[in-house]
Amino acid sequence: MQDAFVGAMKGALLARCPGVQIVDITHGVPPQAIRIGALRLASAAPYFPVGTIHLAVVDPGVGGPRRAVAMESRSQLFLGPDNGVLSLAAPLSSVGWRAVEVTNPAHRLARVSDTFHGRDLFAPAAAHLARGGALEDLGEPTDWIVELALPQPARDGDVIRGVVLDIDRFGNLVTNICAQDLAGRTVQQVSVRGLRIGELSTSYDASERVVAVIDSDDRLEIAMPGRSAAAEIVAGPDEPVEVRLRPLA
Amino acid sequence: MQDAFVGAMKGALLARCPGVQIVDITHGVPPQAIRIGALRLASAAPYFPVGTIHLAVVDPGVGGPRRAVAMESRSQLFLGPDNGVLSLAAPLSSVGWRAVEVTNPAHRLARVSDTFHGRDLFAPAAAHLARGGALEDLGEPTDWIVELALPQPARDGDVIRGVVLDIDRFGNLVTNICAQDLAGRTVQQVSVRGLRIGELSTSYDASERVVAVIDSDDRLEIAMPGRSAAAEIVAGPDEPVEVRLRPLA
Amino acid sequence: MQDAFVGAMKGALLARCPGVQIVDITHGVPPQAIRIGALRLASAAPYFPVGTIHLAVVDPGVGGPRRAVAMESRSQLFLGPDNGVLSLAAPLSSVGWRAVEVTNPAHRLARVSDTFHGRDLFAPAAAHLARGGALEDLGEPTDWIVELALPQPARDGDVIRGVVLDIDRFGNLVTNICAQDLAGRTVQQVSVRGLRIGELSTSYDASERVVAVIDSDDRLEIAMPGRSAAAEIVAGPDEPVEVRLRPLA
Repeated sequence: MQDAFVGAMKGALLARCPGVQIVDITHGVPPQAIRIGALRLASAAPYFPVGTIHLAVVDPGVGGPRRAVAMESRSQLFLGPDNGVLSLAAPLSSVGWRAVEVTNPAHRLARVSDTFHGRDLFAPAAAHLARGGALEDLGEPTDWIVELALPQPARDGDVIRGVVLDIDRFGNLVTNICAQDLAGRTVQQVSVRGLRIGELSTSYDASERVVAVIDSDDRLEIAMPGRSAAAEIVAGPDEPVEVRLRPLA
Repeated sequence: MQDAFVGAMKGALLARCPGVQIVDITHGVPPQAIRIGALRLASAAPYFPVGTIHLAVVDPGVGGPRRAVAMESRSQLFLGPDNGVLSLAAPLSSVGWRAVEVTNPAHRLARVSDTFHGRDLFAPAAAHLARGGALEDLGEPTDWIVELALPQPARDGDVIRGVVLDIDRFGNLVTNICAQDLAGRTVQQVSVRGLRIGELSTSYDASERVVAVIDSDDRLEIAMPGRSAAAEIVAGPDEPVEVRLRPLA
Repeated sequence: MQDAFVGAMKGALLARCPGVQIVDITHGVPPQAIRIGALRLASAAPYFPVGTIHLAVVDPGVGGPRRAVAMESRSQLFLGPDNGVLSLAAPLSSVGWRAVEVTNPAHRLARVSDTFHGRDLFAPAAAHLARGGALEDLGEPTDWIVELALPQPARDGDVIRGVVLDIDRFGNLVTNICAQDLAGRTVQQVSVRGLRIGELSTSYDASERVVAVIDSDDRLEIAMPGRSAAAEIVAGPDEPVEVRLRPLA
């Protein structure tokens, strides 16, 4: 909410659905960072109630050929540009997935700019859904959306190689290696930029200088309690991370 | 919302009008930047419903002689210090404009500090309006407010000279040259800090390094798709911008 | 709200108490800065209505032995980690103070992580209270909480020695010297980092380069009108501040 864009979107939503409850997830996605927007939406959305309408606008292609889509997935609704930003929270494989391309001119402002569909197109479409309107009223059904390809960790014997996906506000390094990738095995060592960390901690133990934990999204995370690991280790997105599993007896 | 000021204002509002819907437009106006606050309010306000109460506090003169004002303009209400911050959203020339000086001690906290009228005076006055109270209850009518003088573009034959007014969170340069200043003519070239851009683009076309567009507020804007124009061009508010129109045949 | 943590907490709250009004005080407390979180909560909370539920999570000890507590104090409710963050807003000495340790597994998510109690434990507990549930349902009564020891100003004749506690978004230096510490005496001089300021101003008087004022929380504050005192004076938390009182006749 650094500038007036979010406010204008809220206004356009309230003008068409007075009193609707608006909840901010985050306005701190770096400009045009679709992957980080997608990760954050996927992290928060499952905790919201059934019927929540999630509006996510990270939209470098606004005014170009990219589609606008609205979806139902796992009993929640999602609206945004079809560039992958919705695809981690509402994957094609999810239960009850269905989608439409948002094309109906009845559910947009009278004049639609080519630079701000958040206000002119997505907010009015969200208002339609918030008033209880049908997904199908927004446009024609579609059976696909653009899916974001997250880098996947690679397993090589007892070694798993992944990367940093995101940095949270504490400077913790969030990786693409998930709890399930460890397959129940014990971690012997985690390495990043030459720094070696032994076994996993269960929390941000302040007695340690650096810890590796499975975080609240079930991702392997590297943290420096009381400090920013990103700043101290000088690591950002795409930095390689290696996990060595304890050999099986 | 970096500190507790906004929270205290919301508390003071809710204490006098429980359950009122509060919507944040932005808390990212730089300290004391009245002009940027005025621009952002003017950008978002028109999209809000009839009857919305806009509370805008950019208030370097708090505790001094500046007046506190409340206004009705275009079927919305506005409250804030009388320093120009409201004057772009609620200009004297607007339909249904009327104003009062906020002086009634019944609609403020029991003790009013000299450093924080947002909490002590404006939030309680907004609560009065939100409960359906009359504008006139807040104080004596007045027929003027301080009007902000935005720098105006100058036309010299086929050349329009303007300046950068604001930088958005994407680093786009928002100018004081509006669509109507182009008078239906075609743009041949836009120049800023020696950088020359050809004709206008209709959107943030990622195939271009730098574009000039008419943005969603009908202002000429200079953007570098995927990057910050402000950082790359090293331009901030008041930077001169020149538009050359294609000569008439 | 830079990342998705706050959003996930709001979701967990709404899932258990649909439609509850959520008000953000601030998400700008620096990572793990318990004292700054405590100060900001204490600054805003008194302005909220009776019955407000304040949820404050600055939680470096999450997953460790620190307790989770819920309190009633001055007809408001408070929830958070028992590390002092609540103790300035809801001191043990306050009227009607009572507390429980939050241990009841019925009021938390089915699976509680060791790194994010805000979402897994505190938000569901807040939802219980917001639905009108009893404090006592959350766990066993306790008659103490961890109290934050703020540095106290020292008086030596006509001199009061204190420190900077916090910096607000304007760069003003907020000190631990309160109006009542001046005991009705007149200030002759305020000093910080060799800079000497004469008597107190009543507001941020733009005709002065630097002012000392009693701010809206009744704290002595050093400000540079239109500029950041923290940046110009190069002073941060714990910087010594000295007040010299005018000698009694």
